[in-house]
Amino acid sequence: MKIAIAQLNPIVGDIEGNAKTILEAAQTAFNQGARLLLTPELSLCGYPPRDLLLNPSFVKSMSIELEKLAQQIPPELAVLVGTVDLNPNAASRGEKPLYNSIAFLEQNQIQQIFHKRLLPTYDVFDEDRYFESGRESHAFKIFPSPQASNFVKVGVTICEDLWNDEEFWGKRNYEASPIEDLAQLEVDFVVNLSASPYSVNKQKLRESMLLHSVTKYKVPIIYNNQVGGNDDLIFDGNSFAYNRQGEICCRAKSFETDLILLDFSEEKQDFLPATIHPLPKTQEEEIFSALVLGLKDYAYKCGFTKVVLGLSGGIDSSLVATIAVKAMGKDNVLGVLMPSPYSSEHSITDAEALVKNLEIKSYQLPIAPAMKVYDQILDPLFAGTQSGIAEENIQSRIRGNLLMAIANKFGYLLLSTGNKSEMAVGYCTLYGDMNGGLAVISDVPKTEVFSICHWLNRHEEIIPHHVLIKPPSAELKPGQLDQDSLPPYEILDDILARMIHHHQSISEIVNTGHDLDTVKKVMKMVMRAEFKRKQAPPGLKITDRAFGTGWRMPIASRWL
Amino acid sequence: MKIAIAQLNPIVGDIEGNAKTILEAAQTAFNQGARLLLTPELSLCGYPPRDLLLNPSFVKSMSIELEKLAQQIPPELAVLVGTVDLNPNAASRGEKPLYNSIAFLEQNQIQQIFHKRLLPTYDVFDEDRYFESGRESHAFKIFPSPQASNFVKVGVTICEDLWNDEEFWGKRNYEASPIEDLAQLEVDFVVNLSASPYSVNKQKLRESMLLHSVTKYKVPIIYNNQVGGNDDLIFDGNSFAYNRQGEICCRAKSFETDLILLDFSEEKQDFLPATIHPLPKTQEEEIFSALVLGLKDYAYKCGFTKVVLGLSGGIDSSLVATIAVKAMGKDNVLGVLMPSPYSSEHSITDAEALVKNLEIKSYQLPIAPAMKVYDQILDPLFAGTQSGIAEENIQSRIRGNLLMAIANKFGYLLLSTGNKSEMAVGYCTLYGDMNGGLAVISDVPKTEVFSICHWLNRHEEIIPHHVLIKPPSAELKPGQLDQDSLPPYEILDDILARMIHHHQSISEIVNTGHDLDTVKKVMKMVMRAEFKRKQAPPGLKITDRAFGTGWRMPIASRWL
Repeated sequence: MKIAIAQLNPIVGDIEGNAKTILEAAQTAFNQGARLLLTPELSLCGYPPRDLLLNPSFVKSMSIELEKLAQQIPPELAVLVGTVDLNPNAASRGEKPLYNSIAFLEQNQIQQIFHKRLLPTYDVFDEDRYFESGRESHAFKIFPSPQASNFVKVGVTICEDLWNDEEFWGKRNYEASPIEDLAQLEVDFVVNLSASPYSVNKQKLRESMLLHSVTKYKVPIIYNNQVGGNDDLIFDGNSFAYNRQGEICCRAKSFETDLILLDFSEEKQDFLPATIHPLPKTQEEEIFSALVLGLKDYAYKCGFTKVVLGLSGGIDSSLVATIAVKAMGKDNVLGVLMPSPYSSEHSITDAEALVKNLEIKSYQLPIAPAMKVYDQILDPLFAGTQSGIAEENIQSRIRGNLLMAIANKFGYLLLSTGNKSEMAVGYCTLYGDMNGGLAVISDVPKTEVFSICHWLNRHEEIIPHHVLIKPPSAELKPGQLDQDSLPPYEILDDILARMIHHHQSISEIVNTGHDLDTVKKVMKMVMRAEFKRKQAPPGLKITDRAFGTGWRMPIASRWL
Repeated sequence: MKIAIAQLNPIVGDIEGNAKTILEAAQTAFNQGARLLLTPELSLCGYPPRDLLLNPSFVKSMSIELEKLAQQIPPELAVLVGTVDLNPNAASRGEKPLYNSIAFLEQNQIQQIFHKRLLPTYDVFDEDRYFESGRESHAFKIFPSPQASNFVKVGVTICEDLWNDEEFWGKRNYEASPIEDLAQLEVDFVVNLSASPYSVNKQKLRESMLLHSVTKYKVPIIYNNQVGGNDDLIFDGNSFAYNRQGEICCRAKSFETDLILLDFSEEKQDFLPATIHPLPKTQEEEIFSALVLGLKDYAYKCGFTKVVLGLSGGIDSSLVATIAVKAMGKDNVLGVLMPSPYSSEHSITDAEALVKNLEIKSYQLPIAPAMKVYDQILDPLFAGTQSGIAEENIQSRIRGNLLMAIANKFGYLLLSTGNKSEMAVGYCTLYGDMNGGLAVISDVPKTEVFSICHWLNRHEEIIPHHVLIKPPSAELKPGQLDQDSLPPYEILDDILARMIHHHQSISEIVNTGHDLDTVKKVMKMVMRAEFKRKQAPPGLKITDRAFGTGWRMPIASRWL
């Protein structure tokens, strides 16, 4: 029995468009001889639909499109579609109004509906906000061909449903265990239809986690993931399957849509070997590919074809420009150099070298005249005060204003270029360099920015050599260096990782060898910068704890 | 038996400071002869603590402070303190690690712990992210005096626990019914310890909802609410009690901390009449008071004593300035007039009249020279293009930059002045007039802004008369009026309320008499402005659906 795994890239909310994509995948799969087609979690509306689910007309649209799909799909092809299902008992039982569901379509009918049981409520996930947990796990029966006398029994799980292996995690994450229930139903294999966001090394985690389940329950598993960028979330695809022996027998592309075919042999009661696309070779390649996809899809899904960014000659804007060229094409990237009297000569020469390497368009707009006019306007209030942060911020905001003017005038998407280390400690200017529709590397720590840039240069110079070796500086006053205000980035990034990712306390971090005053200072800076992060653009998430929808901190608070 | 109800205003995360406040309340209550002191939900850490709860050291601090409190409180006074409790079975049962709890302290001991059972996950609430639901409802026994031979039995509920009256709501909201369980325990009365955020008319809803429960179960109820502003949320206090007959027998102040005493007569098995503070007389007074508190607390809790805002001579900035004067004192409010060549004469004269009425300081900073310098800098790119939105935004951003420069230089909190109607349709400039640490009226529709301003003028002119009668204009190009781009505000606000608050579809809204094209246009504008709202400052929430933590919409989406 041929099974097609559709690794789709839906547009959130575009129910009609997504239905069309599913139909096209169904036609292709059918033409290639598939009997069963899988699509990801909520493939009809795209994941995550978030508060669109609160609109009854949105939910209604999904059920209309699902009915239409059932009519349009070749009747001989069975298809699993991700959709929502109304909970008829919500009002009487005090339950949530919807189920996160999979519809099993065959013979022009919705044959069966499966409900997601384990609903994540950590990090970026709010599934309890909309959905009721399914009470039971179920399977469907499918005859491999009209002539077949025996059916194949397929257990259905939705994303988080398989993220509860007590032995793997060392603790139980949820009360229910869908795979245990399905194993008791003696299914031939299990499908897991997912929309699982990317983070560094996530695919290795998925594969080792599911290997544990395959081995324990002796059941083959097909994992089908969504692909594409949706706001801050990047979905990496990487759909794959394990055979009964715990061997990977197919893997779809990373960071690209794909449709792969897999054979289930009724005789062997197992999947046959199929195409296995390799994973990215290095962490740098993986992150770079993720960011390219995240930017490409954010721009495309928001309707932009061109992007603009400020080029400071620094490593952050150099990396973002390189990502932009890969995502949008070099003709669609505009770099703007905005030197001030405090800018070093190399800020220009390095930016120009990058422009040359990337073959992008650029303009130079010196900001001195604007700095002067702000000084004049503010003189009645500022006369006699010492030049400081206020004046530094004015420069950054002049640049932000110029970039937004260009973006507004020509319909470009402005990219902001701040990294995670800066965003953490607030070493950035709100309404200045933070301006943008998308913060491309705001979840990439500065040390990782360096690694990726070195990796980019592995064959030829893309990031100009001098950008990689000069000490980072905001160049907002004469002779300024990042290290005047911040600990060295190796130290800063380690403290930040412990604080942000591992929830370590001051004393725990100090016990790993860090200086007490430095740790205290960093922690205070992180807490105080919350008001800036509150107003940051969406930032592409590449770690398991990004400053975005999954970071929910009070601003007016006093902790520490 | 005397019961003291402490309507406290905690600072989120300031566990030590909040413990001190609870101790002071305990001492005052004890001196006034109280036997039992109530404090609000999570009174030890303040509500909502949000992701601070993910830090084990934060949770540890609470248990340390709770132990200390137990030692320090007069042993004869029983106190209910809001705290969190570790769930010892989390890892083995697959449950959440914490309980949202109430600790019952007496005789220097933690005598009993109560767990919240109904955890809200709608609007701004994410309680499933941190907490496990309590399985049962419990009561504690208290002897009114050392000589008393009979105890009083008090049932404990936490906030949402009482928001599940099937008859009142016309549907069940949760499976469990804590008050039903407590009624079966034959409690003498029920306490409900809450942190219930304000929205318009919320107190009337609470009182009518609880009246239903009191009547149905024939049990007196004390409702104790937190007061104060925490980021976008305003807590209105209004703690109150119903006696067994369903009569309000006490009510604390609205929008102020309070400590009120209530007598429970063992003989009558009921509460005796006590002080009943009246509710605000009008909706305008109620909203105005809420916004004053929200601003005051945001500034105080963030460490600001002074605020600055731009004065355009329009109604929005006039209202925000008036709120600021009430919240911060007139000496702590700075108004900045920033006329451009497109500004009307009345934009200056009206702003000056307001400055005079409010007796605040002001400066006038004309922006024409800055506009000119941006034109010059951008001329190489913009030459030959038509002046439009880009140029309008530059003006707004020059003003935003000047205001932030003043805020940065003197340590003022910048207030943004946009209303909800503008924020909904995106009739505002990102990094321009949207700049600020707090958006004071971003949840107040324009029509309500007018109502509040008329109410402010009921005794004397505070908002200059001409501000109330002139047609609204952004004055970013010659002769511009809001109504050139938007439907009249009465129509716009009605469409917005139907869309945002009632989740109505286009056809449902059209069926109420609105024009199809207008409805479609408004809905599209709302969807498209999501990227602006994503980067907006926290905005004080006064409705049941604000653009803030409780509004979770995708940006790169296509719906409609």
